[in-house]
Amino acid sequence: MESKYAIGIDVGGTTTKFGIVNNKGEIIEQDRIPSNDCEFVEDFIELLYARLMPMVDKIGGIKNIVGIGMGAPNGNVYTGTIEYAPNLKWKGIIPIADLITKKFGVATKLTNDANAAAMGEMMYGCTKNMKHFITITLGTGVGSGIVIDGKIVVGHDGFAGELGHTIIRPGGRMHKNTGMRGSLESYASATGVRETAIELITAHPDRASLLRDFSINEITSETVHQCALQGDPIANEIFEFTGQILGESLANFVMFSSPEAIVLFGGLTKAGNLLLNPTRKHMEENLLPLFKNKVKLIFSELKESDAAILGASALVWD
Amino acid sequence: MESKYAIGIDVGGTTTKFGIVNNKGEIIEQDRIPSNDCEFVEDFIELLYARLMPMVDKIGGIKNIVGIGMGAPNGNVYTGTIEYAPNLKWKGIIPIADLITKKFGVATKLTNDANAAAMGEMMYGCTKNMKHFITITLGTGVGSGIVIDGKIVVGHDGFAGELGHTIIRPGGRMHKNTGMRGSLESYASATGVRETAIELITAHPDRASLLRDFSINEITSETVHQCALQGDPIANEIFEFTGQILGESLANFVMFSSPEAIVLFGGLTKAGNLLLNPTRKHMEENLLPLFKNKVKLIFSELKESDAAILGASALVWD
Repeated sequence: MESKYAIGIDVGGTTTKFGIVNNKGEIIEQDRIPSNDCEFVEDFIELLYARLMPMVDKIGGIKNIVGIGMGAPNGNVYTGTIEYAPNLKWKGIIPIADLITKKFGVATKLTNDANAAAMGEMMYGCTKNMKHFITITLGTGVGSGIVIDGKIVVGHDGFAGELGHTIIRPGGRMHKNTGMRGSLESYASATGVRETAIELITAHPDRASLLRDFSINEITSETVHQCALQGDPIANEIFEFTGQILGESLANFVMFSSPEAIVLFGGLTKAGNLLLNPTRKHMEENLLPLFKNKVKLIFSELKESDAAILGASALVWD
Repeated sequence: MESKYAIGIDVGGTTTKFGIVNNKGEIIEQDRIPSNDCEFVEDFIELLYARLMPMVDKIGGIKNIVGIGMGAPNGNVYTGTIEYAPNLKWKGIIPIADLITKKFGVATKLTNDANAAAMGEMMYGCTKNMKHFITITLGTGVGSGIVIDGKIVVGHDGFAGELGHTIIRPGGRMHKNTGMRGSLESYASATGVRETAIELITAHPDRASLLRDFSINEITSETVHQCALQGDPIANEIFEFTGQILGESLANFVMFSSPEAIVLFGGLTKAGNLLLNPTRKHMEENLLPLFKNKVKLIFSELKESDAAILGASALVWD
């Protein structure tokens, strides 16, 4: 048989997506399981194996799998371990690449989930011909993958690219998981947008808003988006504010690595220009003249679930 | 003749230092001229030539010069041009590498001055065996050189590594040259320390301070340093504050590229632990646990003038 395949696995905070990818970057089969149902990582791997092997059999068996690529939060490319991931059940240092290699009998490479998404973008997405770009995932949290000279930046210890945790409002909003104040993630994530909404409607009890038709528990970034589309001033202000913080942070990132493009991924990007316009405005305002009007600020063209699996599988061909 | 030499030229905002360096990284001859006495860059190059050629003759003539390396503000490694440098007299885009190549008949390579310093550190200084580090020059301004995988980060357009202009206090102190508010440089430079001193003694007319023995015009980062050494509380507070801002910024940089070390250069480092201790404290406080107590925060061991010339000359051997 000529055609060969890779397995791509993306471990998210809630869901683990996986699939079989051919060498043209097409996902042949895919499925998902919850990330946190199994208390022990060994049981998680058993479940993954049980769901993946029928797919593997369809493409002619494990001999046709060149390798397994995996993205996970706090995944370390140097050691193949997941280290102290706050959103996963398995605590401490988990040698997941080794465990999967043993179970499947196929070499497994691991990287950070956001770096995997950047790999996917570079191999199959809108940055195919770029050597310098940054991907920012605006989901429950804020992830990032940095590409310099065509390579993912992993740094000295394998954990580079935690841009969501950089401080943009010193002394600002408390981030519940990290205990740090004023990080990008505490504002420019789905969670952050929800918090901004609650702060704004609480601070201005006199201002009318469609958001007041929802209970505090019902308010999400999606609710805010819907209200903004209907012209609600507070909802629009929320995106303005989110875009301001994001834009200021992006300006800082541009002055660090001078990318050709910044690619935005994730749930929050559904807000489209509501988010993109203020982000671009505040990014440009905070750039030195040397950098102004040069950096492409774009949305990923890959489907989010595809990007994760493709990116993880890209580790195999790399 | 076996031994070969490089010329290193460092164009600073005030002074241009230059010298002849052998292939062991020893500066054989060196001298300096003012950077801004000549209105036209051609006259500057004539002056440089007149001062360098007697040195070149001492090592057996231009045939023994392998190349010329040059660091300059806003120097672009891709094009060999200095572009819109705010602190230099020559405006617009100056093709200085070409002009020097023609004048001397020797290939000339140009890069950003801060990147040249990082090259010097990597080849001859305290980061000789490191592949991931950041150098920060705390002088009149704040310069930076970023090394990832053993290579200086220049980015898509050659201007990466402007960390002094990243925003750490949004809406904060106005930077006179750039018009931007709250950048690292507006606080953690010699100029910034002077401004903090003036702000603090003006805001607290009731607090005694040795700094009040100086006129506003006399106050410099050096004055503040001397007063702090004598136990002056306001002077010590100034270094605390400067270290806080610098430390917060360094934490952000660490979460970007995960360096093994951050090397501090420049006049402000004369303050030693007065600056280093609060900087380290606030850097560590703002790091994710993943990065804590891992990054070496050190002062350069190279003499500042040597680092600049050595760094520029290193471009030749690179």
